[in-house]
Amino acid sequence: MLIDKNIYEFVKLLASREPVPGGGGAAALVGAIGVALGSMVGNLTVGKEKYKEVEAEIIGILESAGSLQARLLDLVDEDARVFGKVAGVYKMPKDTEEEKKKRNEAMQQALKEACGVPLKIIELSYEAIKLHRRLADIGTRLAVSDVGVGVLCLKAALLSGRMNVLINLNGITDEEFVKNTTDYMERICSEALAIAGETYEKVENILKK
Amino acid sequence: MLIDKNIYEFVKLLASREPVPGGGGAAALVGAIGVALGSMVGNLTVGKEKYKEVEAEIIGILESAGSLQARLLDLVDEDARVFGKVAGVYKMPKDTEEEKKKRNEAMQQALKEACGVPLKIIELSYEAIKLHRRLADIGTRLAVSDVGVGVLCLKAALLSGRMNVLINLNGITDEEFVKNTTDYMERICSEALAIAGETYEKVENILKK
Repeated sequence: MLIDKNIYEFVKLLASREPVPGGGGAAALVGAIGVALGSMVGNLTVGKEKYKEVEAEIIGILESAGSLQARLLDLVDEDARVFGKVAGVYKMPKDTEEEKKKRNEAMQQALKEACGVPLKIIELSYEAIKLHRRLADIGTRLAVSDVGVGVLCLKAALLSGRMNVLINLNGITDEEFVKNTTDYMERICSEALAIAGETYEKVENILKK
Repeated sequence: MLIDKNIYEFVKLLASREPVPGGGGAAALVGAIGVALGSMVGNLTVGKEKYKEVEAEIIGILESAGSLQARLLDLVDEDARVFGKVAGVYKMPKDTEEEKKKRNEAMQQALKEACGVPLKIIELSYEAIKLHRRLADIGTRLAVSDVGVGVLCLKAALLSGRMNVLINLNGITDEEFVKNTTDYMERICSEALAIAGETYEKVENILKK
C-alpha cells in the first residue's frame, strides 16, 4: 500500500518515472493533509473553557473530518489501482481490426472508471472546505493560520482532481458522459472555490489585524 | 524524524493536538509533493525521441528539482525543531518583572527564527514554480496534467508559508523587522503567483483543447 510508505520514500517514488503514485494520488494526499489540519484546529479547541459553547459543534466537525481524512487516504491507493487498469489497456494488442475494437472499448471503460477517483477527491475536498469555513469562525484563534493552510491544501486538492478528470475526459468519446461529468464537476468546483476563497480571506483578515 | 513516518501515521499525527507537525510542516511537505510532480514529468520526458531537442534542458530542470525536493523535505523537520523553541519559551516563568522581561526577549528571538522556515518554503516554492512554467512548455504532453497539479501544490505551499510568516509577525514588536520581512515576502509571493497562474492557465488550455 502506498500510504504505508514513509514520507521520504513516497515523495521519491512520486518524482520517479514509475506509473504510481502520480497526480491523482498526490491530490488525494494533499486533500488528506488539508482536512487533517482542520482536525488539528478542532482538537486544539475542544476542552478549552473559552470555547465551551461551541464544543459540541466542534466534536461533530471532528467526526466528519476524521471520516473525510480516511476516505481521502484510501483514494491514494485507489487511484493507483484504477491507473493500473488504464496502463493495462495500453498494453493490449492492436494489430487486427477486432483487436483494435476490443482495445478501444476497454480503454473507454477504463477511462470512465479513472474519472471516478478524482471526482471523489473533488467531492470530499468540497465537504472538507465547508468544515474549514466553520472552523474559521469558531475554532481557536491561536491556530487560525492552520485553518488557512488547510483550506489552501483543500483548494489545491480540488483543482488537482479537476485536472485529472479533464485529462481523462479528453480520451472519452461518449459525448453525453463528457457533458454530464463536466457539468457536475464544474458546479461543485465553483461552489467550493467560492467558499474556499471566502474562508481564506477571513483568515487573512484576522492575521493582518 | 517526521519524514521517516509513514503517510498514514504522519497525517494522523498532523490531525492530533500534538504540537508538531503543524501548518509549517504541512506546507513544506505539500511543496515537496509539488516539485516531485515536476520531476516526474521531467523523468517521463527524457529518453523520448520526440523530446530529444529539450533533453539537456530537462536534465538541468531535474537536477534543480531534486535539490528543491530535498530541501523542502528537510524543512518538515526543521519547522518542528523551530516550533519546539517557541513552545519552550511559552513555558518560561513570568512571575517577576525580570522573568517577564527575559521571557519576552526569548519570545521575540524565537518568533524571528520561526519566520525563517516559512520564508524558506516561500523561496523554494517560487523556484519550483519557475521550473513548472518551463515544464508546461517543454515537458511531455502525456503528463501535462501533472504539471498543473504540481503548480497547484506549490501555490498552496507558497501561500501556506505566507500564512505562517504572518502569524509569527503578529507577535513580533520590532517594527523594522516586520516591515522588511513583509515587503520581501509579498514581493516574492506576488511574482510567484503571477507565474503559477500563467502556468496553470496554460495547462488548462491544453487540457480543454
